[in-house]
Amino acid sequence: MRFVRFGDRGVERPGCIDSDGRIRDLSDHVTSLEGESLDPDSLSRLGSHDHATLPLVAGGVRLCKPVRRIGKIIGIGPNYSDSAELAGFKINPEPTLFLKAATAASGPNDPIEIPRMANRVDWGVELAVVIGRVAKYVRVEEALRHVAGFTLANDLTERSFQLQRGGQWTKGKSHDTFAPLGPWLVPPSAINHEDIELWLDVNGERQQTGHTRQMIFKVPYLISYISRFMRLEPGDVILTGTPAGVGLSYDPPRFLRPGDRVTLGGTGLGTQDYVCTTL
Amino acid sequence: MRFVRFGDRGVERPGCIDSDGRIRDLSDHVTSLEGESLDPDSLSRLGSHDHATLPLVAGGVRLCKPVRRIGKIIGIGPNYSDSAELAGFKINPEPTLFLKAATAASGPNDPIEIPRMANRVDWGVELAVVIGRVAKYVRVEEALRHVAGFTLANDLTERSFQLQRGGQWTKGKSHDTFAPLGPWLVPPSAINHEDIELWLDVNGERQQTGHTRQMIFKVPYLISYISRFMRLEPGDVILTGTPAGVGLSYDPPRFLRPGDRVTLGGTGLGTQDYVCTTL
Repeated sequence: MRFVRFGDRGVERPGCIDSDGRIRDLSDHVTSLEGESLDPDSLSRLGSHDHATLPLVAGGVRLCKPVRRIGKIIGIGPNYSDSAELAGFKINPEPTLFLKAATAASGPNDPIEIPRMANRVDWGVELAVVIGRVAKYVRVEEALRHVAGFTLANDLTERSFQLQRGGQWTKGKSHDTFAPLGPWLVPPSAINHEDIELWLDVNGERQQTGHTRQMIFKVPYLISYISRFMRLEPGDVILTGTPAGVGLSYDPPRFLRPGDRVTLGGTGLGTQDYVCTTL
Repeated sequence: MRFVRFGDRGVERPGCIDSDGRIRDLSDHVTSLEGESLDPDSLSRLGSHDHATLPLVAGGVRLCKPVRRIGKIIGIGPNYSDSAELAGFKINPEPTLFLKAATAASGPNDPIEIPRMANRVDWGVELAVVIGRVAKYVRVEEALRHVAGFTLANDLTERSFQLQRGGQWTKGKSHDTFAPLGPWLVPPSAINHEDIELWLDVNGERQQTGHTRQMIFKVPYLISYISRFMRLEPGDVILTGTPAGVGLSYDPPRFLRPGDRVTLGGTGLGTQDYVCTTL
C-alpha cells in the first residue's frame, strides 16, 4: 500500500495508489494522514481496504507531502562514506543530528524557492523515515515498530547560510520548500528500505547516485539513537543522509539557479520533479 | 492581560490572570491558545473581556505552557555579551540560530527530566517571544506586529550532548522538559520587553542575573533576521538568549542533579519553580 495526499493547497485529501498506479480516495476511511492515523496498526487497517471499492480520483491532480502535520524534521549529517569525504566533512563515530524547520516541508512536485541573497543552494536525495508511534529510548531491535513508513526526500541546503553565517547549520536548512517529501508513504512491510537505489538529476544530468545499503548508520540504529536525545512523535520525519554527488562536492561546486529542473527518485519510492523559482 | 493555560495534562483550558492574580476561565471565548487564536488582533479582542464576567478558577490548579501547539523553537546563541564571554563562546557579527525540538516544551512548574547518561545539565533563564502571525522577510520596524506575546523560558542544555557528541547542538537542546515556558503570555502592549530583569536560582542560591536591555541583538531585529531564513508561524517560539551565570561559566562548572530545585523569574513575566528528576 502506498499512501498519498492529493488536491490543491488547503484542501488536500488522503488517498492511496492502486495497482494500476491510479489515485484512490481514502477520505471516507480517514480524516487526514497525521498524528494517530499514522500509527502502524491504523495504517495497516487503512491499507486493507479493497482498492476497487475506493473512489477513483481524476488524473492530473496535485500530489502533496504525504503527511499533513510534520512535527519536526531531524536531519542526519554525513551518512554515506563516499559523500562525506567528497564534501569535506569528517565522519563522526556517532551520527550528527540537526533539525530543519518543519515549515520547510513541501510537496514532491512543488517549485523550490531560491531564498533572497542565496547563490549556493544545494540538493541531496534521501530516504526519509516518517514516525508513526511515540519513540523515547527505544531499542534498535524495536525501532522499526515506530515507523509509519518511508518516503522520498530532498534535503536542500543553502551552503553559505549553513557554513558561513555563524555557528549552526539551521540557517541553511530551513527555508520554505527546502524539504520536499513524497510522492507517497510506504509502510516498512511493503518495501525493503535497505535495498533502495537513489538518484538525482539537475536539468537531466545525473548528479547523485547511491544505494541505501551504503549507509554508515542504519535506519533502526538512527531511530534508537535519536530517541535518546528527544521524543519522536507521529508525523516526525528523519532524513537519513544523502549519497555522493551533492553540489558542494564538485570542483567547481554546482548550485541550483532559478529555472533549473530537479528530478530525483528511489526504488519503490517514486519520483519528485520541480523547477527552481525566485521569490 | 496575561493569558494562561491551566488544568491537568490533556485537558488544559485557556484562561487569563485577573487584577487580583486569580485565574479566570476563557473557554467560552476561545477553544485553545494556538494557531490563529494567537493573532495579535484575536488576542486583543480576547483581552477586552471584563474579568468580572469570566468564571473564576479554583486555586491550586496546574499552569501549563501558555500555548498549546508549539510549531518550532528557535534558539539564539550568545546574546548577552557578559554571558558569552564567560562561557567561552565567541560573539558572531550576526545571531547564531539553533532549533530545539518542539517536544521539549513543558509547563512552568513541571519537573525537569535529567536524561539518562546525562551529568552536565545546564540552565538558562530567557525572555521568549511567541509568534502570533506569519512572518517571512519582515522588516525590523514591522517585526513586533507579528508577536502574540512574551513569556518566561528556561533554555536547558546537556553540555556533553551539545558539545562532545559530534557536530550540532541539537542533541543537547531537545530532551523532553528542556524548554519550560510560562507561566503566562503577555502581549507586547502590556509589557516593556526591553526593561525586564531576569534571574535564576538553584536551591535558593542566585546563579543568573541579567536585564534584557543588555541583549546584543534586540527582539525586533531577531524576528526580522530569523524570517530571512525560515517562515515564522503562530505558535513558534524564539528563545532570545540567556544572561551571565549559566552553569558552564563557573569554575568549577555547576550542573543540575536529581532533586535540585530551580526557580527563575522576570519582571512582569512571573516565575517558574520545579525540581529535577531522573527517568
